Amino acid sequence: MRLRVRAGTARQEDALLPAEVPVALSYNGTTQAVMMATPANLTDFALGFSLSEGIARPDDIRDIEAVTGEDGIDLRIWLKDEAGNRLLARRRTMTGPVGCGLCGLDSLAEARRPLAPVPASPLRLGHHDIAGAMAALTQHQPLHDATRAVHAAGFWQQGKGLICVREDVGRHNALDKLIGALVGAGTVTPGAPVTGAVVLTSRISLDMVQKCAALGAPAILAVSAPTLAAVEAAEAADITLVALARSEGFDLYTHPGRISIDAALPPDAEASDVR
Amino acid sequence: MRLRVRAGTARQEDALLPAEVPVALSYNGTTQAVMMATPANLTDFALGFSLSEGIARPDDIRDIEAVTGEDGIDLRIWLKDEAGNRLLARRRTMTGPVGCGLCGLDSLAEARRPLAPVPASPLRLGHHDIAGAMAALTQHQPLHDATRAVHAAGFWQQGKGLICVREDVGRHNALDKLIGALVGAGTVTPGAPVTGAVVLTSRISLDMVQKCAALGAPAILAVSAPTLAAVEAAEAADITLVALARSEGFDLYTHPGRISIDAALPPDAEASDVR
Repeated sequence: MRLRVRAGTARQEDALLPAEVPVALSYNGTTQAVMMATPANLTDFALGFSLSEGIARPDDIRDIEAVTGEDGIDLRIWLKDEAGNRLLARRRTMTGPVGCGLCGLDSLAEARRPLAPVPASPLRLGHHDIAGAMAALTQHQPLHDATRAVHAAGFWQQGKGLICVREDVGRHNALDKLIGALVGAGTVTPGAPVTGAVVLTSRISLDMVQKCAALGAPAILAVSAPTLAAVEAAEAADITLVALARSEGFDLYTHPGRISIDAALPPDAEASDVR
Repeated sequence: MRLRVRAGTARQEDALLPAEVPVALSYNGTTQAVMMATPANLTDFALGFSLSEGIARPDDIRDIEAVTGEDGIDLRIWLKDEAGNRLLARRRTMTGPVGCGLCGLDSLAEARRPLAPVPASPLRLGHHDIAGAMAALTQHQPLHDATRAVHAAGFWQQGKGLICVREDVGRHNALDKLIGALVGAGTVTPGAPVTGAVVLTSRISLDMVQKCAALGAPAILAVSAPTLAAVEAAEAADITLVALARSEGFDLYTHPGRISIDAALPPDAEASDVR
């Protein structure tokens, strides 16, 4: 129950609140990270987190099981031998426990790991594509509509529209679940060209760009604004970064070649100038 | 530079983007966590993170130094003997590296650590106090106004208004910096009654409530909505949780005794029913 006070009147009403539970991501029996997350789409979460954190591709994973206990969910990921050994070697180089925002990275240097360019993609986006993708995302957030306390990440393709959306109390988790859903369904094959854009309700921080780069996404469309590190990372990863994307327009930060600007460009605007 | 496209016209313009740099929080020479953060108010960050994560109170800290390197900032916190030994003992019980959202906790159980009630506080808030605090926060976010990519956390006191605000690319960091600023200035003494409310631009997830509980704050006022776990934690910690706080009203979830509702209450609304 909550007391809703509006314009001088108070009313008691049922409140629909999103669940937020600890989810441990464990690999071959050892905890890699504990996240507060929406307890849904857990296989997507396991697949997406594994790929976006550079731990394992779907082919490296032998089994995924979600074990619900009193204190949360243990999401157990079992790796095939080679990937398991790789993770073990990576763990041995770690100097200590590290935390929030960047999972399982052991140093400042790793936090800004250089990004390789995403695979070349034929994706092109027009004005109306961007407005349409953002509008579609708004219409496919049932958990947000009910609670206003979650973020969403979607995938938009030319001619198909918004083909997949995931919601979560954490914006990073929503993106990881989207990535997992896409690679799990075979919509995206890691390492192959990606012919769609990632669409986000959130701000664009560096780690959001890193995760999109791990998917190979050539474009990010976001409702909110980017950080400087995010723009630099998108530049390096050959990702087109579109922010404040709304019906009335958008801000274009990097790699404008994929966007057709119907609007009249000022004479001094050259594509290569736009970051 | 960015290309701003609005209503059919495109214009190139300078973009002011917020910096987002890796900040390692290290205690007695060992990294505890690496966060992507706004590189400002670092002493506040060290003090606040130490307190809100239960690592050290200001009195336990011998020295804080921020060492800027090529890859980010090493925020070095040196603890007095007793606190250092306590952290060492805690680290020994850790089973492996853990990650995002909950720093340095080693288990699902710890993720939902039970919260003790905050010290009893005489704080009472009326309708206009809440609207005023939210309006004041809107007016004290220079970094957000310039970039639209950061969150803010403020502290509001009866008769004094909004006395402190911190902004950061991460909402948890903004809150940690606020907490550090308050305890650093002696405005709040850990363990003593707190006579103000924490005011947040963000959603209220469990970890935001946990941090406010560590400060001892009796009330949280937030622009956005809470999760179920956040409401349960506020209930347990005797914190009054007010969400969707705007000029036109608010939603009250827990401990309504601190709020005077000027609006007419329906006859079946009893304070004890409100969660």
